[in-house]
Amino acid sequence: MSSLVLRGATVLTMNDTLDVIEGPVVVRDGLITQVGGAEPPGVPTIDVSGCLLLPGFVQTHVHLCQTLFRGAADDLALLAWLRQRVWPMEAAHDEASLRVSTSLAVHELLRTGTTSVLTMETVHDTHAVLETLAASGLRATVGKCLMDRDDAAPARLKQPVSLAIDEALRLRAAFDGAAGGRIRVALAPRFAVSCTRELLEATAAVSDAHRMIVHTHASEQRDEIAVVRAIAGMGNLAYLADTGLATPRLCAAHCVWVDEQEQALLAERDVKVMHCPGSNLKLGSGLAPVTEMRARGITVSLGADGAACNNRLDMFDEMRLAATLQAVRLGPGALPARDVVWMATRAGAATLGLEEEIGQVAAGFRADLVAVDVSGPLVAPSADPYSTLVYASRGSDVRLTMVDGEVLVREGIHQRIDPQALAHDARIEASRLFARAGL
Amino acid sequence: MSSLVLRGATVLTMNDTLDVIEGPVVVRDGLITQVGGAEPPGVPTIDVSGCLLLPGFVQTHVHLCQTLFRGAADDLALLAWLRQRVWPMEAAHDEASLRVSTSLAVHELLRTGTTSVLTMETVHDTHAVLETLAASGLRATVGKCLMDRDDAAPARLKQPVSLAIDEALRLRAAFDGAAGGRIRVALAPRFAVSCTRELLEATAAVSDAHRMIVHTHASEQRDEIAVVRAIAGMGNLAYLADTGLATPRLCAAHCVWVDEQEQALLAERDVKVMHCPGSNLKLGSGLAPVTEMRARGITVSLGADGAACNNRLDMFDEMRLAATLQAVRLGPGALPARDVVWMATRAGAATLGLEEEIGQVAAGFRADLVAVDVSGPLVAPSADPYSTLVYASRGSDVRLTMVDGEVLVREGIHQRIDPQALAHDARIEASRLFARAGL
Repeated sequence: MSSLVLRGATVLTMNDTLDVIEGPVVVRDGLITQVGGAEPPGVPTIDVSGCLLLPGFVQTHVHLCQTLFRGAADDLALLAWLRQRVWPMEAAHDEASLRVSTSLAVHELLRTGTTSVLTMETVHDTHAVLETLAASGLRATVGKCLMDRDDAAPARLKQPVSLAIDEALRLRAAFDGAAGGRIRVALAPRFAVSCTRELLEATAAVSDAHRMIVHTHASEQRDEIAVVRAIAGMGNLAYLADTGLATPRLCAAHCVWVDEQEQALLAERDVKVMHCPGSNLKLGSGLAPVTEMRARGITVSLGADGAACNNRLDMFDEMRLAATLQAVRLGPGALPARDVVWMATRAGAATLGLEEEIGQVAAGFRADLVAVDVSGPLVAPSADPYSTLVYASRGSDVRLTMVDGEVLVREGIHQRIDPQALAHDARIEASRLFARAGL
Repeated sequence: MSSLVLRGATVLTMNDTLDVIEGPVVVRDGLITQVGGAEPPGVPTIDVSGCLLLPGFVQTHVHLCQTLFRGAADDLALLAWLRQRVWPMEAAHDEASLRVSTSLAVHELLRTGTTSVLTMETVHDTHAVLETLAASGLRATVGKCLMDRDDAAPARLKQPVSLAIDEALRLRAAFDGAAGGRIRVALAPRFAVSCTRELLEATAAVSDAHRMIVHTHASEQRDEIAVVRAIAGMGNLAYLADTGLATPRLCAAHCVWVDEQEQALLAERDVKVMHCPGSNLKLGSGLAPVTEMRARGITVSLGADGAACNNRLDMFDEMRLAATLQAVRLGPGALPARDVVWMATRAGAATLGLEEEIGQVAAGFRADLVAVDVSGPLVAPSADPYSTLVYASRGSDVRLTMVDGEVLVREGIHQRIDPQALAHDARIEASRLFARAGL
């Protein structure tokens, strides 16, 4: 198939020794085949001089279906936000609105350098999301939302356990491994508040049987934890462990309120934690003990969460916040910029179970790459590339985004999406959806 | 002189009734002469369809001289950050490096929609900053730094009181009112840690005599407050009041650690507070009680602080953080988006004593305007313009920036600055400065 050379960048390999290399990166058949050394003759080149070239960002907690809710759920805390706004809007989604919501997310993610996501979708019609993703070029591990309780949830969003699990397995059969392996299917019980013990146990059994990732939320806000305690008679993470979910395949978003005992449990079971600092601020959740969790060896990666609570899907925002929120919690230097870039790449890859395929610029890895322009005055004169990326660079500095060797954004311009047409469609589908939801 | 019509935008007037108007904005001789109504015939037009048009942002706490230090002072708390990095670098500035540092800031500020600043410069050569600003088009109130104590400060930065005050007054004589009133001169005692009582009292007397704004830092970090208590035998704000500085002309950056009594003092004396959330996080300062101060009627405006502790100068970052940090302190909705835009415009104008001239899109006001593109998919489908600006828009969405009726950024492109040449100069001057500083 096709070969390509990316020429002129400073390469942050994000390999185990964090090598920084000046030299070409050669891509063939979707894989990186060479980093540094002599440029092979006769291969088409793209000049990315003035850029940092690094592994594409991995966002491990997003909700593509919520992109259409951007700006429609401000100024509410978690449970009210879900019950008054997000659940009614999710219940009002149809296939058309899901496709546009997904494309709107894909546009922003790729435009700002994210090449892989772990995403929890809504209860119904997740095939529409998966089909859109398969055509988009983005790498995605997707779970349809599983939920069967909470009196305040719309009836349409609550499914009997067997129906929910069957649908998740049908999606797995139809889509797992699609698009040359770019698309994978996960299990996504929303959180303990909206799942019965039966559903959580069934999810654990299916995850064990099929080695499927389980993507959930945990211990984001204190009133959520109080609800779980009332339901289960124990702490949130203890409950997830009690239902059999606390395995290395469990990916738990937020973990803002986890005490030392719970952090020990997360570390011991190798549960993956996804930190979402932008969402944690806007929903008033709190400042997560990221530094402490990392010190215990817990894999902590990053995600924007949904546009309903962020309201962006831009890894540069999350990287900057991740670093500076630990500085304000524990003092400057608590979470250095280099560690944040690690979280945004390597930790994300490990969370997805793809550490042998993505997260590094190294021969044999998938060619999921982002080139960030650091030549201009908005980041000058920063010398340290990690500091530049985390503190000074912006999503708008992304010049090139590539997944599986395909150039999806070039010179800042999407190669598959017409932005103005997409914005137009988004406004139309959003207004239809709000009307259906009665909002 | 020249007339111009800005056509097609949704105008956020930020007037007292927060009117939102669809219609033309007419500019003549640097002033806004008409908002809404029929478009006058025969006047040149700029189409800003798809944009929100609003008053240019006012950043009330910046240090232009520190822009060249971007990325050179990460991971340090305030006093170490000053003593180990920022003061040695300020001491190493010369006229050439100050001019480039100023231009680097001006580029970023205008590119991201800031039209006015209150800035504290370094001790020496502030004429170079003022000359650069006068030529830049940006509106600025500038103070040379006044400081005469702290054992850890370089000798070059400490001046005898009379010399410091004389130099500030010479700058006032030479530059106050320059560039058609765009440039003004303030007094800028750095903070109580690095000023003797004699210097603070002399500053207060000069401010009284000449009605000059006093720009300082106060109560940013707890060890700073402890130093002041050891020096003065009282709290930081009580000390500023005791030296005669606590007047409506006092502009106090940060005020992160102010108790109820100190907040009452700020309110009673109408001291202006400048909130710098990005800097407060990165330096580990804390989360300021902005909501409580506003509830007392204190004028709280916004600034990025310097690029040495931010590392951007982008009002969109500060607006988003201002809102979300209050959400995490007090709950979502504590500081609504609309109030944040008020802080970024009206409160900034009031802080500068320019509330009759800038901060509103209204006939008779200076034509300091910014057009923010909200037509694209990165902000769709947000409906509320304040939510969009604060939570979803980015500095890169600024399509047009105008000061005194002059278009300084158009279609996102600077009209007076060559970005690549500026970045080149910044890297050269920074490396020379670091060499001079021995860093």
